[in-house]
Amino acid sequence: MECIYKVNIMKIYSLILLVILKSNIASKAQTEDSLMIKKIYDEVLKHGECYNNLAYLCSNIGGRLSGSPQAAKAVDWGKSVMEGLKLDRIELQPVTVPHWVRGEKEQAFIINHKTGARLETQICALGGSIATPPQGIEAEVIEVMNFEELEKLGKEKINGKIVFYNRAMDPTQIHTFNAYGGAVNQRWAGAMNAAKYGALATVTRSMGLKIDKFPHTGSMSYVDSLPKIPAVAISTEGAEALSNLIRANKTAKFYLKTSCQTLPDAESFNVIGERKGTEKPNEYILIGGHLDAWDNGTGAHDDGAGCVQSMEVLRIFDAIGYKPKHSIRVVLFMNEENGLRGGKEYAKQEKLKKETHIAALESDAGGFSPRGFSFEAPTWFMSSVQNYKPLLLPYDLYDFDGKGGGADISPLVEQGVPVIEIIPDSQRYFDYHHTSDDTFDKVNKRELELGAAAMAALIYLIDNTEFH
Amino acid sequence: MECIYKVNIMKIYSLILLVILKSNIASKAQTEDSLMIKKIYDEVLKHGECYNNLAYLCSNIGGRLSGSPQAAKAVDWGKSVMEGLKLDRIELQPVTVPHWVRGEKEQAFIINHKTGARLETQICALGGSIATPPQGIEAEVIEVMNFEELEKLGKEKINGKIVFYNRAMDPTQIHTFNAYGGAVNQRWAGAMNAAKYGALATVTRSMGLKIDKFPHTGSMSYVDSLPKIPAVAISTEGAEALSNLIRANKTAKFYLKTSCQTLPDAESFNVIGERKGTEKPNEYILIGGHLDAWDNGTGAHDDGAGCVQSMEVLRIFDAIGYKPKHSIRVVLFMNEENGLRGGKEYAKQEKLKKETHIAALESDAGGFSPRGFSFEAPTWFMSSVQNYKPLLLPYDLYDFDGKGGGADISPLVEQGVPVIEIIPDSQRYFDYHHTSDDTFDKVNKRELELGAAAMAALIYLIDNTEFH
Repeated sequence: MECIYKVNIMKIYSLILLVILKSNIASKAQTEDSLMIKKIYDEVLKHGECYNNLAYLCSNIGGRLSGSPQAAKAVDWGKSVMEGLKLDRIELQPVTVPHWVRGEKEQAFIINHKTGARLETQICALGGSIATPPQGIEAEVIEVMNFEELEKLGKEKINGKIVFYNRAMDPTQIHTFNAYGGAVNQRWAGAMNAAKYGALATVTRSMGLKIDKFPHTGSMSYVDSLPKIPAVAISTEGAEALSNLIRANKTAKFYLKTSCQTLPDAESFNVIGERKGTEKPNEYILIGGHLDAWDNGTGAHDDGAGCVQSMEVLRIFDAIGYKPKHSIRVVLFMNEENGLRGGKEYAKQEKLKKETHIAALESDAGGFSPRGFSFEAPTWFMSSVQNYKPLLLPYDLYDFDGKGGGADISPLVEQGVPVIEIIPDSQRYFDYHHTSDDTFDKVNKRELELGAAAMAALIYLIDNTEFH
Repeated sequence: MECIYKVNIMKIYSLILLVILKSNIASKAQTEDSLMIKKIYDEVLKHGECYNNLAYLCSNIGGRLSGSPQAAKAVDWGKSVMEGLKLDRIELQPVTVPHWVRGEKEQAFIINHKTGARLETQICALGGSIATPPQGIEAEVIEVMNFEELEKLGKEKINGKIVFYNRAMDPTQIHTFNAYGGAVNQRWAGAMNAAKYGALATVTRSMGLKIDKFPHTGSMSYVDSLPKIPAVAISTEGAEALSNLIRANKTAKFYLKTSCQTLPDAESFNVIGERKGTEKPNEYILIGGHLDAWDNGTGAHDDGAGCVQSMEVLRIFDAIGYKPKHSIRVVLFMNEENGLRGGKEYAKQEKLKKETHIAALESDAGGFSPRGFSFEAPTWFMSSVQNYKPLLLPYDLYDFDGKGGGADISPLVEQGVPVIEIIPDSQRYFDYHHTSDDTFDKVNKRELELGAAAMAALIYLIDNTEFH
C-alpha cells in the first residue's frame, strides 16, 4: 500500500512537472513569437517601403491590363523591385495572356423617347466585350433585375432591344464582397443570357454601393453557341437615371458606342522572387498579388497594394534579420482580371516540378486596415491557425472564419495546398474597384503597411509551425 | 438508502430541467436580440439619414467653434433635425462658453540665418493662444523633443528664442489615439513650459502621423503665474524642413504672425432631445457627440459624425418600431474642443435634478468603420457587456477591452454613471483631426452608418438588460 502510494505521488509529481515544463516551453515560444511580431510591425510602420513602391507603380505605369505595354512595364518594375531586395532567385515565368483593348472612350446617352431629350451618361465596355458597330447602337431599353425576369419576358419582349440589368448590390451585407457576389452574375453572364432572346446589347449597373459617376469595368464572357453582343457597365448614377426614366416612360431608349476589341494572345510573365529557406529550402511558402490591373484606373487597391505588400514581407524579414526556415516565394501574378492565366500557369509548373508548398497567401482585397484572414485549408492546418489567434488579436486581427484564398492561388487547391487570403476592411473597396478612381491617393499609408505587417506575421508563424 | 437515491435522482432531474429551461430562455432571448440587431443594421444601411445630415452640417455651416455665429447656427440645425424626429422633448440647455477667434490667416517663414532665404510654411494658432505683436515675431529657433530637454537647456539657452517642439507621434502604436496621447502634451502645455525660461513663442509639430502641409490646431493652456506667449502648430512637412535646417545650421530663425484673441465668454447651448421610455421613463440612457468643431475645417469626423450618428439611433428605433423601455436622451454637447463647458454643465444639471443615468455613450473618434466600444464602468455593468459580445461579433465589433468613455460624458463618471465610447478604426483619424482637411468628402457613407448601427445595437442591448 505504501509503495503504491509513493508511485502515485511520483506519478503526480512527474505529471505536474511535465505540465509546468510544457506550459513553460509553450509560453516561451509564445513570448518569442510575440516579440518577433512586434518587430515586424515596428519595422514596417517606421521604415515601410511598400507605400512608395505603390506610388511609383500607380503614377509611372498606371493601368496595366494583360498584353498592354504598361503590363510589360509592370513586369520590369516588379523584377527591379525584387532585385533591390537581393533575393536568391528571380524568375520571369512565361504566360500567354488574352489581349483585349478598350479603344476610344465609350459614349452613351439616355434618350427620352417622347421628348427626344438626350442625357449623356458614363459607361465603359466590359472586359472581353465586342464593340458596337462604328455608328453605335440605339434601341429601346428593357430593365430586368435577374435572369429569371429575362426568361419570363422571352424573345417577344427582348428581341431587338437593349437589356438593362439593374439589380443593385445588397447594402445590408456587412461584408461588401458578399454583396458583390450576389450581383456580379449580371456582369459576367449578362450578355450571353440576353443574346438568347435576341437582345442587341446589354447595359449593366456598376458593381458599386455608392451612387456616383464612375462606371465599373470587369470581365464578362460569351458562349460559342450564342451570338456575341456588346456589353457595357453604366455608373450607378446613370443606372438610377435610366431606371427612373423607364418607369416614367416605358419606351426609353439608350445609345451606346464602344470600339473595344480582342487582339491575338500576347506573351507576358508572372514575376517570381525567392528567399531560400535555411532549414527546408525545398518547401515553399507563397505570398502574392496580381500585377495586371484594369486599364481605366491605375490599379492602386486592385491589386498594386497586394504586389507591394507581398514584396514588403521579404523586405521586413531582411530588415529585422529573420531568416525563414522554408523558402519564401513572392509571386506577382499576371492576368487575374481577365483570364487567370498566370495563376493557372503557376499551378501547372508547380505540379510538373513536384514542388512542395506549405501554404499560399494572397492579398487581393485592397490596401485597407486588415481584419483577419480567410482560409481554404485542411484540418491539420487550421488547428495550428487556432494557436496564432491570441498572437494576432493585439493587432486587430480577429476574423479567421471566412472561407477561401485569393483567385490566383485557387488553382493550387487541387494539389492540396492550404490557401489563404488577407481580409481587409471591405467598406470602401467597391467605391474604387475597376473604376478610374482606383488611384494612389485612395490608399492610406498606415492601412497598407498594417496589411503588409499582418501578412509577414502570419508567414512568420507558418514558417515556425511543425504541422502534423 | 433507496429513498435518498430517489431524492438524488429527483434533484438531478430538476437540475437538468432547470438548465434546459434556462438555456432555452437565454437562447430565445438571444435570437430575439439578434433579429432586432439585424433590423437595426438593415434600416441604417438601406435608409440611413445620417450621411445626408452630415453633408448639410459640413457644407452649410462648416467650422463652428464655441461662441461663433456658426456654432449658433449649428445649435439651430441640431434642434431642427431633432424636431424632424418628433421627439417627446427637446431642450436647449444654456452653457456659457469661451470665445476665442483666430483672426487673419497666420503667416510663417523658416529662415536660413546664413543665406537669409525665407521659406513660407503652414502654421495655425493653437486654440486659446494670444496673438503675436502686429509685426509678428522673428527669432532664433531651438528644437526640443520634450520638457526634460527644455529644462536641461534652461533660461540661458532658451531666453529670447522660439521653442520648437518636434516629438513626432509614435508610428509603432497600432491605435493612433495612443500615439496622440504620447505627443499632445507638447501642444497643451508647451507654451507654459517654454515661458518659464523666457521663450518668445512656441511652434509645435502637428499632431498627425502623415507628412503633409496641413497644420493641426487644438487647445492649449496658460498658467496665471507665467507670461503668456503665442503658440502655433506647424505642419509635419514644415516641421521636417525646420528640423533639417536647424541640424544643418544651428542658428536657423523662424517668423510667425498671428492675430487670434480671446473675447468675453459667450452664451450657447447643449442641444438635448428625448424619446420617453415605455417602462422606466425616469431612467435615462444618454447618446451624444459634440456640436462644436474647430474653425479651420468643417468638423466632419470631429465631431459632426458623432452628432449625426447619435440622432440616427433614435431615427432607427422609430423606423423599426422599437419603443425603448428607458428614456433615450441624445445630447449634442457644446464646447468639447476648448473648455468642455457643455459636458460639465450637463453633469451639473443632472446632479441637481437627481436624474438616474443607466449609461452614457459618446461617439467622438471619427465616422470610420467601428471595431468595438471602450468602457469606464463598474463590474455589475461590465459583466452584462460580456453577454453582448457574441451578438455584436457578426458585425465586426470585437474590441471591448479599451478604457474610458468620451470627453463630454467624463464628468458623469463622478456620479457613478457607466460611460462608453465607440471605437472606430483609428488609422485615418489623425490625417484630418483639427485640420482644414476634416471635410465631408473624407467620410464614407457606409462606415458612418455602421457606426450609427453599432451604437443603436449597444443601446438596444443596454435597454433590455436587467442590471444587478
